[in-house]
Amino acid sequence: MTEHHFYEPRHGHGLRHDPLNAIVGPRPIGWIGSLNAAGVRNLAPYSFFNLFAYRPPIVGFASSAWKDSAANIAVSGEFTWNLATRDLAEAMNASSATVAPEVDEFDLAGLEAAPSRLIAAPRVAASPVSFECRLTQQFELTDAGGAGTGAWMTFGEVVAIHIDPAMLDDGVYITARARPIVRGGGAGEYFEITEDRLFAMRRPT
Amino acid sequence: MTEHHFYEPRHGHGLRHDPLNAIVGPRPIGWIGSLNAAGVRNLAPYSFFNLFAYRPPIVGFASSAWKDSAANIAVSGEFTWNLATRDLAEAMNASSATVAPEVDEFDLAGLEAAPSRLIAAPRVAASPVSFECRLTQQFELTDAGGAGTGAWMTFGEVVAIHIDPAMLDDGVYITARARPIVRGGGAGEYFEITEDRLFAMRRPT
Repeated sequence: MTEHHFYEPRHGHGLRHDPLNAIVGPRPIGWIGSLNAAGVRNLAPYSFFNLFAYRPPIVGFASSAWKDSAANIAVSGEFTWNLATRDLAEAMNASSATVAPEVDEFDLAGLEAAPSRLIAAPRVAASPVSFECRLTQQFELTDAGGAGTGAWMTFGEVVAIHIDPAMLDDGVYITARARPIVRGGGAGEYFEITEDRLFAMRRPT
Repeated sequence: MTEHHFYEPRHGHGLRHDPLNAIVGPRPIGWIGSLNAAGVRNLAPYSFFNLFAYRPPIVGFASSAWKDSAANIAVSGEFTWNLATRDLAEAMNASSATVAPEVDEFDLAGLEAAPSRLIAAPRVAASPVSFECRLTQQFELTDAGGAGTGAWMTFGEVVAIHIDPAMLDDGVYITARARPIVRGGGAGEYFEITEDRLFAMRRPT
């Protein structure tokens, strides 16, 4: 076995590109809708996102700084999550532009907003699945020395779920049917998830 | 457009299976190595895992209860993350068995452990990438009413990284080369990530 390339991130990676986000991935996309205090619609994709608990369902995402989504959610206590798919990839990408808080990012991305039922934050109408979420925990990530990193975590309980029934097969949700996309490492790199790459293993008891 | 299936998770999903983990995914796998106070090696895969910050790098995972990994890390302050690949899938799956804390889960899964450089927790020798991590934050996830959920989050700073140089192309890490696997929804469902499903979009400026 060849010697592994070893580095300590605090002292540089010694490579042409930082490999970190190409290693941990590809990652589910947190496509987050929110409203600011003036009622302007915000929509932005976060690649440091995941599900963290089942009952009740908890999702969470990290923002590399105190951005509009985090600030909106801190005030309103609400957000939506919307499934990013191959068909919606260009619109999702458009919603990642850095724009002033008063810009409606649904309009910017050419997306229709749909109303939520339990919260005020808007959903992406064309997304096959959306979650309505209520803020549960929000805090700055700290480093091993206890210092703030500038990155903020936001967690929310999923209080309501909308699913396009075409994604269901006899009451079972089929992951690949929506053609979900997941975030890779390199600049603008994504992977599409397809059924033919699926395999199953029986979990030991 | 057909009416979406709508439900509130607190009141049941009305489907044949809970679709939640099939919707948010597929997910990178947190294959976490740790040591207990007696020095016994623990290794377990967590599917509620991700990267959350770049500089310094922070990873985190959720445990559905206060399990061995969380307890070991609370005491030792250290853990490793190891990349799960198609070649290591069966061993990773074997390491998910629920066993007593005194069982060495590297031995159980037939895996060789490699020493870390900055911490005591062991790495998976055959994994093409491993991280050495120091605990930064650990807490119980709460619900929208502020009550504990029983699920615990553990965050750590990545203080050192080992990469098999075969995964690098002229100093750039190639995600698909390791044949990473990501966790889907249904029982034991995974997806393999392959280069032919990659696409790129230029991020708006």
